[in-house]
Amino acid sequence: MTKTKKKESKKLKIIPLGGMHEVGKNMMLFEYGEDIMIIDCGMTFPTTDMLGIDCVIPDFEYLRQNSDRIRGMVLTHSHEDHIGGVPFFLKEFNVPIYASPLTQGFLKIKFKEHKITDYEFHDLKPGSIVDLGCFKIEALHVTHSVADSMALLINTPAGKVFHTGDFKFDYTPLDDQPTDIARIAQIGREGVHLLLSDSTNAVREGFSESEKVIKENLEIIFKKNDHRLIITTFSSNVHRVQSVLDLAYDNGRKVAITGRSMENMVKVASELGYLKVPPNTIITLKQAKLYKNKELVILTTGSQGEPMSALTRIAEGQHKDIKITSDDVVILSSSVVPGNELGVYDIINEIMAKGAQVIYSEVADVHASGHAKREELKLMLALLRPKYFMPVHGEIRLLISHKELAQEMGISPSNIVIAENGSVIELTKRSFKLSDERVQAGPVLVDGLGIGDVGSKVLGERKALSEGGLIVLCAVFDGSNRIVSDIQLHTKGLIYVKEYGEVLDRARAAMYNALDDAYAKKASKDKIKEILETTLKNYIYKEIKRNPVIVPVFMEV
Amino acid sequence: MTKTKKKESKKLKIIPLGGMHEVGKNMMLFEYGEDIMIIDCGMTFPTTDMLGIDCVIPDFEYLRQNSDRIRGMVLTHSHEDHIGGVPFFLKEFNVPIYASPLTQGFLKIKFKEHKITDYEFHDLKPGSIVDLGCFKIEALHVTHSVADSMALLINTPAGKVFHTGDFKFDYTPLDDQPTDIARIAQIGREGVHLLLSDSTNAVREGFSESEKVIKENLEIIFKKNDHRLIITTFSSNVHRVQSVLDLAYDNGRKVAITGRSMENMVKVASELGYLKVPPNTIITLKQAKLYKNKELVILTTGSQGEPMSALTRIAEGQHKDIKITSDDVVILSSSVVPGNELGVYDIINEIMAKGAQVIYSEVADVHASGHAKREELKLMLALLRPKYFMPVHGEIRLLISHKELAQEMGISPSNIVIAENGSVIELTKRSFKLSDERVQAGPVLVDGLGIGDVGSKVLGERKALSEGGLIVLCAVFDGSNRIVSDIQLHTKGLIYVKEYGEVLDRARAAMYNALDDAYAKKASKDKIKEILETTLKNYIYKEIKRNPVIVPVFMEV
Repeated sequence: MTKTKKKESKKLKIIPLGGMHEVGKNMMLFEYGEDIMIIDCGMTFPTTDMLGIDCVIPDFEYLRQNSDRIRGMVLTHSHEDHIGGVPFFLKEFNVPIYASPLTQGFLKIKFKEHKITDYEFHDLKPGSIVDLGCFKIEALHVTHSVADSMALLINTPAGKVFHTGDFKFDYTPLDDQPTDIARIAQIGREGVHLLLSDSTNAVREGFSESEKVIKENLEIIFKKNDHRLIITTFSSNVHRVQSVLDLAYDNGRKVAITGRSMENMVKVASELGYLKVPPNTIITLKQAKLYKNKELVILTTGSQGEPMSALTRIAEGQHKDIKITSDDVVILSSSVVPGNELGVYDIINEIMAKGAQVIYSEVADVHASGHAKREELKLMLALLRPKYFMPVHGEIRLLISHKELAQEMGISPSNIVIAENGSVIELTKRSFKLSDERVQAGPVLVDGLGIGDVGSKVLGERKALSEGGLIVLCAVFDGSNRIVSDIQLHTKGLIYVKEYGEVLDRARAAMYNALDDAYAKKASKDKIKEILETTLKNYIYKEIKRNPVIVPVFMEV
Repeated sequence: MTKTKKKESKKLKIIPLGGMHEVGKNMMLFEYGEDIMIIDCGMTFPTTDMLGIDCVIPDFEYLRQNSDRIRGMVLTHSHEDHIGGVPFFLKEFNVPIYASPLTQGFLKIKFKEHKITDYEFHDLKPGSIVDLGCFKIEALHVTHSVADSMALLINTPAGKVFHTGDFKFDYTPLDDQPTDIARIAQIGREGVHLLLSDSTNAVREGFSESEKVIKENLEIIFKKNDHRLIITTFSSNVHRVQSVLDLAYDNGRKVAITGRSMENMVKVASELGYLKVPPNTIITLKQAKLYKNKELVILTTGSQGEPMSALTRIAEGQHKDIKITSDDVVILSSSVVPGNELGVYDIINEIMAKGAQVIYSEVADVHASGHAKREELKLMLALLRPKYFMPVHGEIRLLISHKELAQEMGISPSNIVIAENGSVIELTKRSFKLSDERVQAGPVLVDGLGIGDVGSKVLGERKALSEGGLIVLCAVFDGSNRIVSDIQLHTKGLIYVKEYGEVLDRARAAMYNALDDAYAKKASKDKIKEILETTLKNYIYKEIKRNPVIVPVFMEV
């Protein structure tokens, strides 16, 4: 250690590796002296331009360079955007992980799929105090759309930092465990140096609805229908599923479950006691066939219209056990994640075209957000009265809206930082600011078993292929500069060759003509290759105004 | 004509070729005896699974088979989903077109692009009566988000049919020409046999906002800002653009326009008198550089985040003349068309990241829908009191919601038809029902100059290419069953070959091993081809869990 380094280390560095200027893959480092502590390690779904990509995770490069300094990872709750990157992380790093029993349960399912056996879990529960190097972390209960969500009070040498995690203030949650407002108020009175607060709903006015209201609204649907009820929600939403199970029991219905993630969740959450399954309520899809429609609830995955999900298969008539009829009422007890609108509408339309009724959040109050809206964000700020503020979790439009709200609440703009992924934010007893330093923090794309081997060049090729298809141009040269084979053209995704293939014959004719000219001019082999490719490209564009990818393959014998 | 046919012809047939179970490409035929009359001929944008497709138009096959019977086409208004298919239609059919001067103006721009010179326009204005065969059509003024929108009263031998077109009831429109409620009421008192009504907002409660309110809200923004204002809206929204021009004039600002469709609209609409440009208000982008920010409005295209639009180029820092700074306020005076959410958020985020303020409809009332909401739909039903009802323009969830609303208004469910594209709906003096007959009416995909040559097979190939990229496998056989060249592998969109190419070398090694085995077993040429392809496919899947498209190219010398 040089002296300079020691001096530098008097500052707390906060480094977001994900979750800033985006919704998803939340990950944040706290670094002081030789200690690094990690909060969350999420994934995100690929955007539409990331063709063929399975998921996106944070870039761990900075951690690779500092792996010996990582003291541990704390997970606030079990949503994919907070834990989805953990299996990929564990393939490279072995550090203790602090998580709630439910989060551990969900992660163990992932670890099995990823064949990960080497990990070190520690229970994190409301009231837990965790020591990670110089950091002393206290967990507090908050309400959110998954059970066992926690905010964190991080005691650091530079002062107390409060990280809300994902939260809302629900005074009447189903499990009677509201956000621990008393402890938050106490922490506020003791003084908070910096608040990091969830910005997901920062543009939404008002107060989020209580889960109890949603249960009441679902109850009305249960009471007035004697049709079969097919209900989907986010499979992680333990409370919503609890409502469905309870309402089924109270109204003399059995519940059959379809969709792997919902089956997994119900299994894990009921084993761990988070979900209390009423007696004789859950049945198999096979058993369900013995019951009348009015005695049944089908609980299914697919609230986002995911292509292979159970609800999509049901809507498209592809589900082995469940066929939609006009005697079904389908309830999407969920919001639509931005980007999934058309997929969800497709599902709704397909189900309605089969004669069933569909109830969704646009037409009825059957979903409550798990994230604090503006009045709740104000309450959090009012309780904690932090000196410094940094909005987290969200696109920049949300971060800035949250910043403006904090200013309305009296925090000076100079005490607020809007950070990016890779920003290094420095906190001392007296200051809070973006430093000039930056760490590598781009998105890492996962495709099959490949992590990071698909970048912008490959994605650019996929985009070009998707828009214009391709033509493989193939010919064989002998030792001289002569082509000794046919010129072959093979297309994919260009035109329906069986009916419209003549354009390819004409293109080949044009190429043979160009070849004759080239021979006459004693063109070199490279020149001939270039002439053939250009002739093909120009001909296709002239004839059908398209730009397929051209893959020239010249062989030698 | 056989006798049977003549008997059949006593019924009015209504045949939607587009706009049912979808938003877009509205087109509807009215057929009685030997006469066919067409209402609208729209286009729609490709859905995300229609890779590389430029636009989608209705299938004209039924009209091809009956081209001598088409008496004319009536266009209700100038939106793309009502007129976008006209240029494609005119390439095959030459029939008189009845349209408002504004619609004609917009179409002429399209005709120029499509090099169409042979067409027959007739003016259609509120109060116009058009005779097309046995149909007598009266046009009435309705308010909508484009000027000169009309509803149609179609007098047919089977009774009076009222087609609302796209409409809203705005009692305080900017041009002081509200929907012609008096004439509608009169028509209702005289008796309407069948109502066809716009379903776009059938799930939205309440009454749509007036254009005047939006102008007032924009005025507040003009009054309180001395930043440069960059405003985007749908370029067809003449009234909104009028508001912007008037507010600029009243507040001492000049307006510079960027984006081809906005420039075209302002030119056409002001030439035809729909847009009244205040004196000395419009300037060029070059002139704009001479003004201070507080003296400027930039009016731009790109409200849907379209990739090449002016606003997107501005947001991404690619616009030649306009650079975003923190001294800009950007206003998206528009709604987000479903499916465009992420693109629009991207633009908002990019602009905010550059320090400008962004005002959009999610955070402020800066846009009013052009379509009637539920209370307005009820008003239309209450005024017209039709015997029969068919909801038009919308996905099935919207059509069914509109049907339910009509039932609430007292129309018997048996008097309501939910139709599909290609349905044949029969209306007589005494009956209204779906017939068993159907006509061809699928979507026709336009890609470059090709119309219909890209179908599901080609789209399937594009999808596979986009997700997994491709490998071209190439080898040369001699006259015997021996390969006399290298085995070459060329990839696109698979992996970043420069860094991760070894997997291809290992795949080739596996193929050479397989080839040795095949030679030893004296395998046939076809068998060898099969072995090489399978070996490659399996190896790649095993190594990186991906399924690229494999294009085998075997040459002979």
